[in-house]
Amino acid sequence: MNLHVVILAAGQGTRMRSALPKVLHPVAGKPMLEHVIDSARALLPAGIHVVIGHGAQQVRDTLESNDLNWVQQTEQLGTGHAVAQALPHISDADQILVLYGDVPLIRVETLRALVDQAGRQSLGLLTVLMQDPTGYGRIIRNRDDQVQAIVEQKDASPEQLLINEGNTGIMVLPGDKAIEWLSSLSNNNAQGEYYLTDVVALAVAGSIAVEVAQAGDELEVLGANNRLQLAVLERGWQQREAERLMTLGASLADPARLDVRGEVSIGRDISIDVNVVFEGRVVIEDNVVIGSHCVIKDSVIKAGSTIKAFSHLEGAEVGEQCDVGPYARLRPGTVLHTAAKVGNFVETKKAVVGEGSKINHLSYVGDAEIGKGANVGAGTITCNYDGVNKFVTRIGDGAFIGSNTALVAPVTVGNQATTAAGSTITQDIPDANLGVARGRQRNIQGWNRPVKQFKP
Amino acid sequence: MNLHVVILAAGQGTRMRSALPKVLHPVAGKPMLEHVIDSARALLPAGIHVVIGHGAQQVRDTLESNDLNWVQQTEQLGTGHAVAQALPHISDADQILVLYGDVPLIRVETLRALVDQAGRQSLGLLTVLMQDPTGYGRIIRNRDDQVQAIVEQKDASPEQLLINEGNTGIMVLPGDKAIEWLSSLSNNNAQGEYYLTDVVALAVAGSIAVEVAQAGDELEVLGANNRLQLAVLERGWQQREAERLMTLGASLADPARLDVRGEVSIGRDISIDVNVVFEGRVVIEDNVVIGSHCVIKDSVIKAGSTIKAFSHLEGAEVGEQCDVGPYARLRPGTVLHTAAKVGNFVETKKAVVGEGSKINHLSYVGDAEIGKGANVGAGTITCNYDGVNKFVTRIGDGAFIGSNTALVAPVTVGNQATTAAGSTITQDIPDANLGVARGRQRNIQGWNRPVKQFKP
Amino acid sequence: MNLHVVILAAGQGTRMRSALPKVLHPVAGKPMLEHVIDSARALLPAGIHVVIGHGAQQVRDTLESNDLNWVQQTEQLGTGHAVAQALPHISDADQILVLYGDVPLIRVETLRALVDQAGRQSLGLLTVLMQDPTGYGRIIRNRDDQVQAIVEQKDASPEQLLINEGNTGIMVLPGDKAIEWLSSLSNNNAQGEYYLTDVVALAVAGSIAVEVAQAGDELEVLGANNRLQLAVLERGWQQREAERLMTLGASLADPARLDVRGEVSIGRDISIDVNVVFEGRVVIEDNVVIGSHCVIKDSVIKAGSTIKAFSHLEGAEVGEQCDVGPYARLRPGTVLHTAAKVGNFVETKKAVVGEGSKINHLSYVGDAEIGKGANVGAGTITCNYDGVNKFVTRIGDGAFIGSNTALVAPVTVGNQATTAAGSTITQDIPDANLGVARGRQRNIQGWNRPVKQFKP
Repeated sequence: MNLHVVILAAGQGTRMRSALPKVLHPVAGKPMLEHVIDSARALLPAGIHVVIGHGAQQVRDTLESNDLNWVQQTEQLGTGHAVAQALPHISDADQILVLYGDVPLIRVETLRALVDQAGRQSLGLLTVLMQDPTGYGRIIRNRDDQVQAIVEQKDASPEQLLINEGNTGIMVLPGDKAIEWLSSLSNNNAQGEYYLTDVVALAVAGSIAVEVAQAGDELEVLGANNRLQLAVLERGWQQREAERLMTLGASLADPARLDVRGEVSIGRDISIDVNVVFEGRVVIEDNVVIGSHCVIKDSVIKAGSTIKAFSHLEGAEVGEQCDVGPYARLRPGTVLHTAAKVGNFVETKKAVVGEGSKINHLSYVGDAEIGKGANVGAGTITCNYDGVNKFVTRIGDGAFIGSNTALVAPVTVGNQATTAAGSTITQDIPDANLGVARGRQRNIQGWNRPVKQFKP
Repeated sequence: MNLHVVILAAGQGTRMRSALPKVLHPVAGKPMLEHVIDSARALLPAGIHVVIGHGAQQVRDTLESNDLNWVQQTEQLGTGHAVAQALPHISDADQILVLYGDVPLIRVETLRALVDQAGRQSLGLLTVLMQDPTGYGRIIRNRDDQVQAIVEQKDASPEQLLINEGNTGIMVLPGDKAIEWLSSLSNNNAQGEYYLTDVVALAVAGSIAVEVAQAGDELEVLGANNRLQLAVLERGWQQREAERLMTLGASLADPARLDVRGEVSIGRDISIDVNVVFEGRVVIEDNVVIGSHCVIKDSVIKAGSTIKAFSHLEGAEVGEQCDVGPYARLRPGTVLHTAAKVGNFVETKKAVVGEGSKINHLSYVGDAEIGKGANVGAGTITCNYDGVNKFVTRIGDGAFIGSNTALVAPVTVGNQATTAAGSTITQDIPDANLGVARGRQRNIQGWNRPVKQFKP
Repeated sequence: MNLHVVILAAGQGTRMRSALPKVLHPVAGKPMLEHVIDSARALLPAGIHVVIGHGAQQVRDTLESNDLNWVQQTEQLGTGHAVAQALPHISDADQILVLYGDVPLIRVETLRALVDQAGRQSLGLLTVLMQDPTGYGRIIRNRDDQVQAIVEQKDASPEQLLINEGNTGIMVLPGDKAIEWLSSLSNNNAQGEYYLTDVVALAVAGSIAVEVAQAGDELEVLGANNRLQLAVLERGWQQREAERLMTLGASLADPARLDVRGEVSIGRDISIDVNVVFEGRVVIEDNVVIGSHCVIKDSVIKAGSTIKAFSHLEGAEVGEQCDVGPYARLRPGTVLHTAAKVGNFVETKKAVVGEGSKINHLSYVGDAEIGKGANVGAGTITCNYDGVNKFVTRIGDGAFIGSNTALVAPVTVGNQATTAAGSTITQDIPDANLGVARGRQRNIQGWNRPVKQFKP
């Protein structure tokens, strides 16, 4: 017995009002369908079959992978029809788990429980207890708690309408039965579609046991048909993630104001202030403090460092005990060694900042290598670009870059060297030298200040 | 039959603890009373009569308009008395709709339904189903569902207290009856006031039909008597607006963290990250991405552009495929042509940036005209102000402004011209010339670094 | 009769997953235990006894104070045992109020009511009405509403489980009875602990009256055992604080997006936009407007001033009618006089800015004294640091600092003096003089632009 997962991803999603196929709309920065595929992968199935239709090529281009079998559904004739398209790739002895490309928050453990519950012989049905089941098919059970039928809203009796166990559409089918059931579905209904749900009645009629697993909460089985539902999924995902981080040992100033789009791994005693956004792969070690309103992407922040408010990190590595921000922008290739400091209105890019060195104020440091214990003054600019080429600036250990210095790369400021404030440095400065490159001051007496000019 | 709207706006609002008259407190950046007036205007009435009292002059000064008839209520003797002040301007054959200046979220469609329901002969009453009607007048209906009375909290029987249909105070009166009813109101009550609500009893007594329309939700009819309620209205308004934008085709990272104060029109497939604030008139075209923590006011953002985190736009026009931010501040008069780029810690003001031109880092560009394909280096400052006059800086197509350049306006940098890094440019640079204006570098050996000075 | 408060603060808090003792985890920027101590202090008790165990030394070091008696509980044998450790410091005639170091939101008025209710002779018990009392001890009362017992979840009958009045653990004991009761507690239970709760049964058995006070809400008596609960307390505290500020006369754009960690005192008609964070002692006078995404710490903002979006103030004093931001960073020692203006990407530190003076763009102004009516141009840097010493820059009344000026301190720019744009000023400029210190411009014809270099 092998497990095959069939993911239905052919729908158009008209209510999204979007040029993007519905299943590619992102939750937590990742297409909904990719969430479902990732959950499917965690089950280590023999095959994953993604049934695509609307925007099929765009979906494939976005998520192409060796372990996915793309199945084209040329006409959208209903969920039963969609699953049937995948059957040629599945054998009688297999188990088939049906998932939906627009139901991205389903948990792996829920799916595992469903697959185990179903086994090889039974129909497995995932249900959910709902606050308000209006519109959903109700699960009708007999006195022995065995599922007898799924009754749709419009067909339900007043008593049945009170049932708050709803159908999720997620189910497990035995391979042999799937072939039999799906070929006998009828499209004799208002929509003229073949409904997968109808296999439940066929199972009951054929005395095949229907085994039920329940989802942990409604969010797991919520689909997104419009952007309001997409936002509900997004916030649901984020709440989960916030709870995960708090459980691991992060203090969050407001769990409702954290956004994680990617994978964040944390140490202990992390403190994260309000309105922080994480993207991509972020690693945060012990005792890191992240201030309010920070955006941090694909970065590593080592133990004991502080990232102050309004900082923006991307592709950066922050060493231990560093002090970053507020308003620091660390761009890709920034590496801060231990106890380095990058302050306000400073941009760094491909810049290695040595141990204990400081760039405290209003500077642009790009394509630079800075030694240990150097001080880069306010208003320093590395002129790394001549319009076509980029060049490197090297600043030695203990160097002191005076304020408002322009460093025209390629250029090297030696160890313990100094630049005079306001200098434009175009030649290397030997170790311990002072480099000066500025005009001499004249004070002009009797100078008349500008007067207001008449503008016609 | 003409429709006249009477808006009660004379209250003091002591619990606001404010020098501002209550009805001028803003919701979504607009005085509450203005919201009500705008809703009234949408009904195309024959007249809008605003009854003012406390802070009357300030209210008039703020909202003065040709289509408003200001009615002074010199003494605050109750809602019935207030409406009566407007009667001299309304004739017997008219319909009178009574609104409240501190109930700003009332929907136009709700008012239309009420006015239609009431017609010419009946009293129209707007009610609302309430989660918790404590403190509100309950709507008493007979077996035929006809309104019999409004019973106040203190007068209600235990059974009546269970009624969750409450009075909103919003009603439609036939002109002739209004005169009759309002003149026969009594102020024989604890507050010594003439209550408009009492006309319902008079209508029932006089066998005038009471026709009911129901508000869509409680928020529509919620008034603000203090700043806690004002905040509830604000968030309610913002939630409505978020839902509107999502329905139109915007993806919101968090609908609860979007603020719209003004009018935002959007194309399709807009993505708006958390904590964005829109003010004034903002136009956003297709496929625009707006990053987290942005403030955008009175601006146009054309198709395919990206505004990155922490950007602040005001009075700006961003062309197609532009790349703005993070930390970009575009001030009024900024026009970015297609594919222009403004990066971090850059301020622009009255600046036209040509197609594909870039101002990537730490610059102030004011009163400037920049051609196509120009590159403005880090730390560039347009010195546009001499203390009394402002002057223009012109930068040609393909020009390259070296880092840390000061451009002393009026000045022109020619097409394909270059400025050397660190230069202060005071004279025009012809096309394709290099302008240099900086000191020559000397390296000083044997220079002694400063030593710590003793400060007594 | 004297009141003694015993605060239990010995727990480890394993589920916090933290190196910090549980009671030191902060709510609103202050350790939970300190909140409880502050509430205790407000009752003006004869003694406050803090029972410490896990991390005892760290707790003492953090909160050491003359008015606290630290009581070491060497073994954690239960709440009854913990209180008993404090008894040697309390006499028979005293009243004992038992509080918990991880229940920080308890209100002083609730405690006062409980203490008064209990009096000298009775056991005082604080209870709370709970939405969902699952897991809590239920309060069993007789027909006369007298407390008969507290029944734990596991021992409760189905009827008792429906009781939604729960035990909070907070209680008042008569000193003499406390000694008797605590010495007769048994640890014959699953945990092998001595439970304080058991004194209720002893009181009932001994015909000592049990007097009840109820907490205002569940938040008051909620303890934090993990970081999820800590976050609930944090948001609960912040909501209280937001309501307090709104009641006093502040308009909040979103009460759920305000964070106060410290003490904020406000005037009237304050407007606070979304995502503002206050820390330490902040004073805000009448008619101040604070924009979105601001962080304000230990600062005073005087009447009529505006702080625009993305500003970061710490240790600053902003005078009346000032205009600060967006993206202004005012560091400690910044004093703005009336109508001063600090604009975008400007950092100030130990800087006095005179009346009406302006620092509008991209500047660093540290250790500076600026007179009245001065204008500091874009890109101005005070070079206040030579690597070891800091020096002061003085700018006179009406001075005009041209853009991109570096002021090498110590240096004085006289009244009405001017610096030419791009100058590095190293010597004093007398009043009304123009200081120039820059290179002369040359334009170079026939200059060849850099070409793309081959990089192997």
